[in-house]
Amino acid sequence: MNLLLLEPDELSSRGEALLTDTRAAHLRDVLGVVPGSLVRVGVIDGPLGRAEVLWVDEETVRLRCALGDRVPARPRLDLLLALPRPKVLKRLWAPLAALGVGRVYLSNARRVERFYFDSHAVRPEVYRPRLLEGLAQAKDTHLPEVQVHKFLRKLVEDVIERDHPEAKRLIADPEYDRSPIRVLDGLDPSRRVLLAIGPEGGWDPYERELLQRHAFVGVGLGKRTLRSDTAVVSLVSIAHETLRIAE
Amino acid sequence: MNLLLLEPDELSSRGEALLTDTRAAHLRDVLGVVPGSLVRVGVIDGPLGRAEVLWVDEETVRLRCALGDRVPARPRLDLLLALPRPKVLKRLWAPLAALGVGRVYLSNARRVERFYFDSHAVRPEVYRPRLLEGLAQAKDTHLPEVQVHKFLRKLVEDVIERDHPEAKRLIADPEYDRSPIRVLDGLDPSRRVLLAIGPEGGWDPYERELLQRHAFVGVGLGKRTLRSDTAVVSLVSIAHETLRIAE
Repeated sequence: MNLLLLEPDELSSRGEALLTDTRAAHLRDVLGVVPGSLVRVGVIDGPLGRAEVLWVDEETVRLRCALGDRVPARPRLDLLLALPRPKVLKRLWAPLAALGVGRVYLSNARRVERFYFDSHAVRPEVYRPRLLEGLAQAKDTHLPEVQVHKFLRKLVEDVIERDHPEAKRLIADPEYDRSPIRVLDGLDPSRRVLLAIGPEGGWDPYERELLQRHAFVGVGLGKRTLRSDTAVVSLVSIAHETLRIAE
Repeated sequence: MNLLLLEPDELSSRGEALLTDTRAAHLRDVLGVVPGSLVRVGVIDGPLGRAEVLWVDEETVRLRCALGDRVPARPRLDLLLALPRPKVLKRLWAPLAALGVGRVYLSNARRVERFYFDSHAVRPEVYRPRLLEGLAQAKDTHLPEVQVHKFLRKLVEDVIERDHPEAKRLIADPEYDRSPIRVLDGLDPSRRVLLAIGPEGGWDPYERELLQRHAFVGVGLGKRTLRSDTAVVSLVSIAHETLRIAE
């Protein structure tokens, strides 16, 4: 745990927080905090800061927080992800939050199985703790927003066009050879990026055509075909690093 | 399975192979092959080709292979990896082979626990099937070579200097800010790259100094700290993609 994340309503008006859950156990048993210890804290979707440990016992840890003014910048990347297999999706939540994404649209696609939508992996009680774990790892406070959509076409035509009118849009697929580094190089630092990643086996031709018609530029990573969880981490990493060096 | 991988000694002089293991079961039960079906094959460390299914029964699949002349190019990237936790390493073998690495040096480092060296994850019978799984995914035949070293200094001074005299060398660590994209951009396509990635928590100052003295250039991915398996996939992906677009 590189950062202790607090819910906004856990902070009293005097900036104190009383922890009784697994975070208290982690502070006490893994980090070995004692009264006077300082720990790095962050408020979910809020600022970073430091906390002094005031009290430790077998059940509770009490902290006094000094938070900064600055909220970390929201990651510039949003994802449109064809809903992965439940097992893969569960594994992806923490790394996605650690790498940094603003919003994740999980969407249907022809090669997505219908039963994926009924899995635990798309439920907030399953993904929220995993996203928080990723944020704590990366020392960020921006909890990615998650939306689940059963119709790709409605998602693109209604939601994307309304909520991401200015975003640079990319569609990743083994069909395309152009590198995301080339497409994102020199992008205006004020613009956000929306990256669409297909299911295992790729988008189908109709889906590619739909996304291209809505200004998604095709990108790929060459001839090697990657498992979808590796492909997601690869693409998100490459996009972020290209954006980072242009800033 | 995007590629059926064969051991060189499984091919008869007439180019036939008789499979009786899980590959036979996969061909029969998952891919549903019948006599006359064509499948993509590759010989480990050898050429790619096509095979025609000659015979299928409950226990065996017999194939006749037509192999090309060309062996896929060896991935340009080698890794020096501070030995990860066994659980992490097990998860990394398949994606590493899928992304493509020529050789992997697993090394000790100050922040590596000694008992990691006794784990199953560093044994060929554990990593070889996982590497083959990654190769089959990526349609490559180059099995990464793996070496385990208990002394980083001896590894660098003796082995690296002898076997990688011309390689462009990178050391990745949260201490460095320079992007691997910048460092690898414009690299001569004939040069190989050797990327050193530290343990959870990073290299210690002595190790960074040792590697820098041996021409390893410091690179990092910015402020977000990633779990070590995510960091490995990120760094390898970014390095490969930068090399790919320069070719």
